[in-house]
Amino acid sequence: MTYQALDSKSAVEYVKNCPALANVLPNPENLVAKEVGDGNLNLVFIIENSDDPKQSVVLKQALPYLRVAGDSWPLTRERMRFETQALLKHNELAPGLVPLVYEHDEDMSLVIMEYLRELEIMRKPLVERQKFPHFVDHISTFMARSLFFTSDLYLTGVAKKELQAKFINPHMCKIQEDFVFTNPYMESPENNWNPEIDAEVQAVRANGELKLALAEMKAGFMTSGQALIHSDLHTGSIMVNETDTRVIDPEFAFFGPMGFDVGAILENLVLNYLSHYAHTPDPDERAEYQAYLLEMVRDVWNEFARKFDAVWAENNCGELMPTQYWNFSGGEQIFAEFRRRYIQNILHDAAGHGGSKMLRRMMGIVNVWDITSIEDLQKRAVCERLAIKIGSRWVLERGKISSVDDLIRIVAEETKAADIRHS
Amino acid sequence: MTYQALDSKSAVEYVKNCPALANVLPNPENLVAKEVGDGNLNLVFIIENSDDPKQSVVLKQALPYLRVAGDSWPLTRERMRFETQALLKHNELAPGLVPLVYEHDEDMSLVIMEYLRELEIMRKPLVERQKFPHFVDHISTFMARSLFFTSDLYLTGVAKKELQAKFINPHMCKIQEDFVFTNPYMESPENNWNPEIDAEVQAVRANGELKLALAEMKAGFMTSGQALIHSDLHTGSIMVNETDTRVIDPEFAFFGPMGFDVGAILENLVLNYLSHYAHTPDPDERAEYQAYLLEMVRDVWNEFARKFDAVWAENNCGELMPTQYWNFSGGEQIFAEFRRRYIQNILHDAAGHGGSKMLRRMMGIVNVWDITSIEDLQKRAVCERLAIKIGSRWVLERGKISSVDDLIRIVAEETKAADIRHS
Repeated sequence: MTYQALDSKSAVEYVKNCPALANVLPNPENLVAKEVGDGNLNLVFIIENSDDPKQSVVLKQALPYLRVAGDSWPLTRERMRFETQALLKHNELAPGLVPLVYEHDEDMSLVIMEYLRELEIMRKPLVERQKFPHFVDHISTFMARSLFFTSDLYLTGVAKKELQAKFINPHMCKIQEDFVFTNPYMESPENNWNPEIDAEVQAVRANGELKLALAEMKAGFMTSGQALIHSDLHTGSIMVNETDTRVIDPEFAFFGPMGFDVGAILENLVLNYLSHYAHTPDPDERAEYQAYLLEMVRDVWNEFARKFDAVWAENNCGELMPTQYWNFSGGEQIFAEFRRRYIQNILHDAAGHGGSKMLRRMMGIVNVWDITSIEDLQKRAVCERLAIKIGSRWVLERGKISSVDDLIRIVAEETKAADIRHS
Repeated sequence: MTYQALDSKSAVEYVKNCPALANVLPNPENLVAKEVGDGNLNLVFIIENSDDPKQSVVLKQALPYLRVAGDSWPLTRERMRFETQALLKHNELAPGLVPLVYEHDEDMSLVIMEYLRELEIMRKPLVERQKFPHFVDHISTFMARSLFFTSDLYLTGVAKKELQAKFINPHMCKIQEDFVFTNPYMESPENNWNPEIDAEVQAVRANGELKLALAEMKAGFMTSGQALIHSDLHTGSIMVNETDTRVIDPEFAFFGPMGFDVGAILENLVLNYLSHYAHTPDPDERAEYQAYLLEMVRDVWNEFARKFDAVWAENNCGELMPTQYWNFSGGEQIFAEFRRRYIQNILHDAAGHGGSKMLRRMMGIVNVWDITSIEDLQKRAVCERLAIKIGSRWVLERGKISSVDDLIRIVAEETKAADIRHS
């Protein structure tokens, strides 16, 4: 089929003609499609049976351009291939933690998947101080499994490189290279920041030590092909409710550093933590929920590390290293030490990448709703200044981080030093 | 054309029918082909005009199997595609330092290139204590240019990844993963070592700290896609004479760590240095030539580092980082510091990879002629024990290496401690 952008009518026609959807949409007579995307990058249709809304799917189709900063530039539709491939791989490795994929069509740049009616994007409920008792377990499982099972620790070298070849994703990587690691820290027309923190933004751009560290993080992002990473794993790419967690939107997926995914989760929880200085004026309520968020930071890392180590010890059939390599007196301890150091390096990387992403959210093109939803620019600036301080220290001190408690200590030290009174 | 292995007759017919060779072989009537390969991996024909031997080419064709350790296993012929692509890229980036490519044919898995009549493989003349006054300049230029211009430091992120995609080379990488980083250090039937050093070999296999470090080097080899590396850049892949240097046989080429190439050169010079304890009994002669070799080690690194830095400062148009990123007060110094640290990391990697390769040459499947040509096993063991000590220290101390002098100091300390008398 030749590519054409769908509309509500043609989307319904398309799904009616998909044999793969016979079980999901058994009564295709009364299907209605509603376009719910933001119109920037993709069309997103919710298609459901008006008589029985449980019969429903989401159809997501890539548009051949990206509208950003008021401007529009052509963007290769192949990103939908990467998203589809990653969704299928994640369904295989972490079933139940991503939407089911029912159908995909490379020519049409579309994927048809489960409609997650009962779930919502995580940012808003975090601002509303909701709690998610299963989130730590779910996200740590997702990361441990999606990263471990696509790495040289589980795959043969040949299988890993064959998979890596399918995920060479230069145009989407370029977006992260520019907007996470480069443009926010220099003059670039699309940058966007709160005028209240102009001095702090200029200081970051002139901070030689920090810029050098950010360049080193970018080098790692561009060269370290450890595993298939989601590469955009913030709380806007996660749908949740009380019982369920689903990771969505993996169109940036490629073989990169594991710490980039882990750091994204930790960083977004910290940004949400900071946003409560404005969103939650009551000091007790705020303290209680902020403590909950820091506990999540601690638990996400510790559970990830524990599961990653366990899944490795139990499935050591990858190129790095065959079990027989550790077959010598004391070898079992040395293998454990190899795992410990490997995971420690993921933590260092998570600190560096998480810190970089915290900084870019304050001064680059893509801000974060948790904070931009604070209308009072002075109150917003309080959070943003802290994010800049914490992000900078995560980046600069990444090599000295020995446990997640060090990351949390930096958050505590900076927020204490800021001595924020009730708003 | 369907693949078929050529013989002396069909090789001549093949070149006669190549329009691209009209200038190189203007009189194709009297062409004669001689097969000079070792019959293991490839057919190598020298084809020349019997009336005018200056009219000559080399035709190299991949065989669909690899004979090794008495056994033979199928090996994908696509390695000739990687060799051809790399030769073409090297001709573009380091002209005059690789053989000219006249023709290539992917279906037939062959490449036709310049016959380097006046040059010879470097190992033997190094054992004969010949000197090569241009080698340092040539090899440092080859490495600085082939590595820099295929990295993110020069290319855009998109261009680099598109090039990287053409060099996903899983089967050849697997050979290095196995035979450099894994099998030599555990029980594996193809391993091969001098029985005189059995105790030392067993000690390496049971040395937990060293095995952990080797596993970390392997992780870097498998994930660090810095640049298009030759990946087999030992003195058996270099042809030389008094005036000329050519790098050949890049069939292992892929995007890997730059230090793997640099380390291979340094390591092979040190192994040759050690071999003179047997090959050069006269102590004065030996001391003089060994000093020459260590000076080469020093100069190869220092010249490489100087040229790499210069070419970077002059051609900073890659993704990592745009010049504008360094455009702040003091930014020029910080950019210089970024380059210094980047190059320092290549040195650390060169120490680790060079050390790994030194070890594998003593106890793996692929030994090194400089040393295996020592017939007296006890004399050979003297060199091999030193290689094991030096290689182990290069690997273990790699993070603390601050200049190439540290690598040379380790060679000097170990050879002094061994207190070798005249043989």
